[in-house]
Amino acid sequence: MISPVRLALLGCGTVGSEVVRLLHEQSADLAARIGAPLEIAGIAVRRLGRDRGDLPVDEALFTTDALGLVKRDDVDVVVEVVGGIEPARGWLVEALRAGKSVVTANKALLAEDGAALHAAAAEGGADLYYEASVAGAIPLLRPLRDSLHGDRVNRVTGIVNGTTNFILSAMDATGAGFAEALEEATALGYAEADPTADVEGFDAAAKAAILASLAFHTRVTAADVHREGITEVTAADVASARAMGCTIKLLCIAARVPDAAGKETVNVRVHPAMIPRTHPLASVGDAFNAVFVEAEAAGQLMFYGRGAGGAPTASAVLGDVVAVARNRLAGVRAPSESAYADLPVRPMGEALTRYHVSLDVADRPGVLAAVAGVFARHGVSIATVRQGSAGASGAGAGSGEDAELVIVTHTAPDAALAATVGELRGLDIVRSVPSVLRVEGGA
Amino acid sequence: MISPVRLALLGCGTVGSEVVRLLHEQSADLAARIGAPLEIAGIAVRRLGRDRGDLPVDEALFTTDALGLVKRDDVDVVVEVVGGIEPARGWLVEALRAGKSVVTANKALLAEDGAALHAAAAEGGADLYYEASVAGAIPLLRPLRDSLHGDRVNRVTGIVNGTTNFILSAMDATGAGFAEALEEATALGYAEADPTADVEGFDAAAKAAILASLAFHTRVTAADVHREGITEVTAADVASARAMGCTIKLLCIAARVPDAAGKETVNVRVHPAMIPRTHPLASVGDAFNAVFVEAEAAGQLMFYGRGAGGAPTASAVLGDVVAVARNRLAGVRAPSESAYADLPVRPMGEALTRYHVSLDVADRPGVLAAVAGVFARHGVSIATVRQGSAGASGAGAGSGEDAELVIVTHTAPDAALAATVGELRGLDIVRSVPSVLRVEGGA
Repeated sequence: MISPVRLALLGCGTVGSEVVRLLHEQSADLAARIGAPLEIAGIAVRRLGRDRGDLPVDEALFTTDALGLVKRDDVDVVVEVVGGIEPARGWLVEALRAGKSVVTANKALLAEDGAALHAAAAEGGADLYYEASVAGAIPLLRPLRDSLHGDRVNRVTGIVNGTTNFILSAMDATGAGFAEALEEATALGYAEADPTADVEGFDAAAKAAILASLAFHTRVTAADVHREGITEVTAADVASARAMGCTIKLLCIAARVPDAAGKETVNVRVHPAMIPRTHPLASVGDAFNAVFVEAEAAGQLMFYGRGAGGAPTASAVLGDVVAVARNRLAGVRAPSESAYADLPVRPMGEALTRYHVSLDVADRPGVLAAVAGVFARHGVSIATVRQGSAGASGAGAGSGEDAELVIVTHTAPDAALAATVGELRGLDIVRSVPSVLRVEGGA
Repeated sequence: MISPVRLALLGCGTVGSEVVRLLHEQSADLAARIGAPLEIAGIAVRRLGRDRGDLPVDEALFTTDALGLVKRDDVDVVVEVVGGIEPARGWLVEALRAGKSVVTANKALLAEDGAALHAAAAEGGADLYYEASVAGAIPLLRPLRDSLHGDRVNRVTGIVNGTTNFILSAMDATGAGFAEALEEATALGYAEADPTADVEGFDAAAKAAILASLAFHTRVTAADVHREGITEVTAADVASARAMGCTIKLLCIAARVPDAAGKETVNVRVHPAMIPRTHPLASVGDAFNAVFVEAEAAGQLMFYGRGAGGAPTASAVLGDVVAVARNRLAGVRAPSESAYADLPVRPMGEALTRYHVSLDVADRPGVLAAVAGVFARHGVSIATVRQGSAGASGAGAGSGEDAELVIVTHTAPDAALAATVGELRGLDIVRSVPSVLRVEGGA
């Protein structure tokens, strides 16, 4: 009889209870795949005695002493699905230093202080797995970490937050504004009561840091990620995008960029952007996630699936549990953090982006020349100019005293583009700038 | 100085020469990721002295003695990109038994006699990796083998042959017939001079066997796979599909199915089928591949990318090379074949499918009743009936003596559906059966 691999489960909310359920339902299969049964040694929760429905687990396993549970000698693997920086960091560092394998879904902690976890793992000779931290059920970190290790990843572009994708998809489908779409998302359970982490891009930025670290073999933290949320995206922006054959998505982008001296650097950012409707990411609707990877030899790859929810996240957690349990039985450890490339992370101003700018301008001769002059002064080259119907005034193009100019630029440093828009806002022939959005995906 | 990991490369065609090129270009990165440099010990080719362009490799490394190369003591890893059953099987069995790691892209061999390779790997305590054998650059086997090991895969539906996908996409876009679209594919280099392996579904069937084996922890060989190619798909079929809001794809499908007694079994098949245009696989165009996975907890996942070509396939090969090289340095071995579930593979007749049938029938009272009676006798339930424009006769619906009936069934055992169509063909009120296609993807 092979002795079981014993798990400490930290957290028993939506994900944790699905982990418990799957461990129970699939126990025979999991044991066959691992070569030993899995057993729950204990479950740390905030409060005891809570009604946990029909969770198939002995009530005696629950404890409020997470650290005590982690330290127990009969615990082999620690599964953390609590989230947040502390106290999770303390528990996991303790576990890893003691040589216990850790499986975590904690993107905030990994993005903020992954270095502490990796250091503890190295110290204890322990495995640290975190597939569930990015894009829920989608196997993504393992492909980046292992399958693409013979290749050179140039760019990762992802939709990694389901809440904002639901909101933007709704805005695109119905013409609703942000507030209305957020309300719908909240009513349907896609947005939390406090949606800040999602709509302001914090969640996506944490995931961007994790993806960039793996893709570029470089430590990237949440603080390195330029972050803009979707609260400023208007129905007018969505309509502008539609007129361009585009849709708006909150993208996380991690890209290699050469600096002024041609040296390789990395830029990581989260912001709303227009992408062409023909781009594979454009059709990722509802709360789905997808990550588009461009690699030197592999070319374009896309990974698509459910990015959140109890069962999908639990699937990723259990995949990692099987892996670390097998490693323990085999007495081996997965390759540790790969950060050898150590590329400098450059600020947003140096990222190469393209802008879509709508301007309400005075409808008189010389306006286009003046506007084009501003772009030229900042070294920004214009790709297309379209004179559309007038903006706020409601008057037809050329018929009244206002006109609308829609300008799409070629690629330029983001700082030059931002400065261009800033100067345009100050021109007195420019009445207003109703929409400024970055354009991604080769539109 | 850490001693290098030494590779024997068997084959130096499209994929092999890309492997050489990438080994050269990325050598510093690969060494950093592995912890030791990679070195080519020798390259086995059919003929020496061939012009290999500017391949960055010493001419002295080439040999025609593959077996001799494999047996050399200074070879750690054998990379096979020759293809075919023999002599590749002999080389790889020899390598594995001697404890050498093997990385292969040889789908035909794995599907025909994977058991021999897995047995040799177990005997020699060696790694056997084959990510490149299915869907080229798309990281697919590793996610199935590792990431989803905590979950239960219910169904895998894939577009895994680029040539046929190019042909069917062209037929869909232009209305061309099979022969014309094949000609275009050949001219553009998407189809080989002898396209049999692709258009008759042999290539897809081998991949289906590999995917099913991994997804269901059960040995599935090419002989277990029901196989139909696309040579019989007509422009009329494509038009019928279009009228239904569908497109036609050559799908490989591996699914769990309960047998008559409710016991779990597996069915694996390759055939053309209609899928709704809204299905994520429908928009996979050109020579791209994609695999759609449905798992109990993870839900729906899709993996998309380039399924063939020198560089994409070489990317997958090198990802595996990095993995096995790391394993060697760490003195460990990846988990071996997982075939514990050993589910029975049931024949096509027991698979549950849906049919789309177009009939040219005599336009007179009682015809629909007679046709519906045939379906009923076979226990097949009809989902929709549409009376369309007449078929071969060209006369309008109901206006002449012929009419067209388009029938889509509910799910039924494939044998019952096939028998229904057989009996319909024998009815004298049925003039012809211009189109019979399976329908997949929940249309």
